[in-house]
Amino acid sequence: MSELRKDPVVGRWVIISPERGKRPSDYAVCRERRREGVCPLCPGNESMTPPEIFAFREKGTKPDEEGWSIRVVPNKFPALRMEGETDRRCWGIYDRMNGVGEHEVVIETPEHERELPYLPLTEIKKILFVYKLRMEELAKDPRFRYVVIFKNRGREAGASLQHSHSQIISLPVIPKRVMEELKGGKTHYRDTGRCIFCEMVEQERKGERVVEENEDFIAFAPYAARFPYETWIFPREHASDYRQIRQRQYGTLAVILRNTLKRLDRVLEDPPYNLVFHTSPLLEGNLPHYHWHIEIIPKVTRIAGFEWGTGFYINPTPPEESAAYLREADLT
Amino acid sequence: MSELRKDPVVGRWVIISPERGKRPSDYAVCRERRREGVCPLCPGNESMTPPEIFAFREKGTKPDEEGWSIRVVPNKFPALRMEGETDRRCWGIYDRMNGVGEHEVVIETPEHERELPYLPLTEIKKILFVYKLRMEELAKDPRFRYVVIFKNRGREAGASLQHSHSQIISLPVIPKRVMEELKGGKTHYRDTGRCIFCEMVEQERKGERVVEENEDFIAFAPYAARFPYETWIFPREHASDYRQIRQRQYGTLAVILRNTLKRLDRVLEDPPYNLVFHTSPLLEGNLPHYHWHIEIIPKVTRIAGFEWGTGFYINPTPPEESAAYLREADLT
Repeated sequence: MSELRKDPVVGRWVIISPERGKRPSDYAVCRERRREGVCPLCPGNESMTPPEIFAFREKGTKPDEEGWSIRVVPNKFPALRMEGETDRRCWGIYDRMNGVGEHEVVIETPEHERELPYLPLTEIKKILFVYKLRMEELAKDPRFRYVVIFKNRGREAGASLQHSHSQIISLPVIPKRVMEELKGGKTHYRDTGRCIFCEMVEQERKGERVVEENEDFIAFAPYAARFPYETWIFPREHASDYRQIRQRQYGTLAVILRNTLKRLDRVLEDPPYNLVFHTSPLLEGNLPHYHWHIEIIPKVTRIAGFEWGTGFYINPTPPEESAAYLREADLT
Repeated sequence: MSELRKDPVVGRWVIISPERGKRPSDYAVCRERRREGVCPLCPGNESMTPPEIFAFREKGTKPDEEGWSIRVVPNKFPALRMEGETDRRCWGIYDRMNGVGEHEVVIETPEHERELPYLPLTEIKKILFVYKLRMEELAKDPRFRYVVIFKNRGREAGASLQHSHSQIISLPVIPKRVMEELKGGKTHYRDTGRCIFCEMVEQERKGERVVEENEDFIAFAPYAARFPYETWIFPREHASDYRQIRQRQYGTLAVILRNTLKRLDRVLEDPPYNLVFHTSPLLEGNLPHYHWHIEIIPKVTRIAGFEWGTGFYINPTPPEESAAYLREADLT
């Protein structure tokens, strides 16, 4: 029997409609392997990207030369431009502003074929640190209100390059999805005095949707998952802003992120996916009603008109089932 | 220069980031043509679907036999089930109910190869009438709060069958996207005493985003379009519920719908698309702050993590440009 479930934060209803006998391997996507020419993210090709913003480098090497292990560069085809003012205007009922923002690429490794979860833990920790560093830097620009950190893996998930990388975009506005989460969290806090995300973590810890847990973090399949194998990672302790991450949490986050991505690779045969950090707006400080987290969405089903048109999703895999498969995945 | 635009109703910001020199043909999708076995929607195969709910038939023919021109059947693989009560429950912070609802398929023509906009106008009018008829029928069931009418064309848009058809789903809850539109409309109405959608229609009529207009309807590219070639069709006169459609409007709607779909076929080379009716909830009656309409979304770009994670879209085609191409399309 199918079931309707409501996301407790944003109020979205999802149909969990299990297709009988559907196994994870039925979702395996025939991934497009594009033949690429020269990779602009590989060592030796540093001149193919705009000049680097930041890098971890071997001593003695110079910017935009070889010798880096992680490198941050401006996106060569940015969705937004750094220069100029936002120049907010309206025209009748319509609001607009200039597309001001920074769009950066974090090249996660010099190795073309090595993907994020197969890097040494020390390197994953450094990547997580770079995210925080860039957020702090972008927060200094008074035009920006929000920073999105995300990663697309595979062409089907929107990645235009194969070489492992993530992206950072700073925005002069707060994205709608985040506004909804903030609002849902605020309402719950006003009514109960508690962070709804903390309650969610508490409730999930006892339950059958847990994928993995360590001293600082929990990975679970959300109750009202929109997509098969959708997985969220939350810090167990309350913190609204990713910039609040503690030193030791780089290690524990690196472990749970690596393992979760490996589990998805094992169970869904290297699926395309999107990974997005959800964190509070730049100017908000520490909010009692918001809780930063990571959402990972494997791209294994087509989204049809029903979903787009209504914001109402049909998910053929109950999250209890996807969590069970992911928990049992062999990590060796 | 890219631009940020805000949807005046739901408050979503979109980046309009034109890619220089991008032409409509660059969006042409290599459509998957699946070899299908026997088509369950073709005449002669009526026994392959569940028994029909409604049909336009030649005199003297019987249900579930040949001789129909439009046929409505239950979906053989429904996302929801007709039987049972909603049985709403909660478990801690989580809400759930049974997946109760009706899921119907409208087979638009007996001809396997003929698509909606290439049917005679009289047939398109009948299809539009069938939508209303089914909505009225489903509204009689007190368990249902909303009816979604939608159409997926092409596998990339989620269609599992090639034979031209649309779908109707009745739901015991109101979808999130509709709730957002209702709320945005209500706020504007409270502040100004006017329907924001009526204002939008008024403002668009004078502008450069019009695709087509007739005495009853207007088709235009929305100001804050999320997707290239996204096109909306609105009745010019205020009406919140599709069931309020007037007799003569079947004809004028059939014309503008046919032409809009033909224009998309010409300009984007028969793209996959989703088409969704947005109408007020079943029990609401005529609302002064809502306005029914149709949204058509060609599936020509991949949606990447940024969009999913944030509800923030990057659209490489300004709606003024898509409207110009669509206006100039040859309809002969």
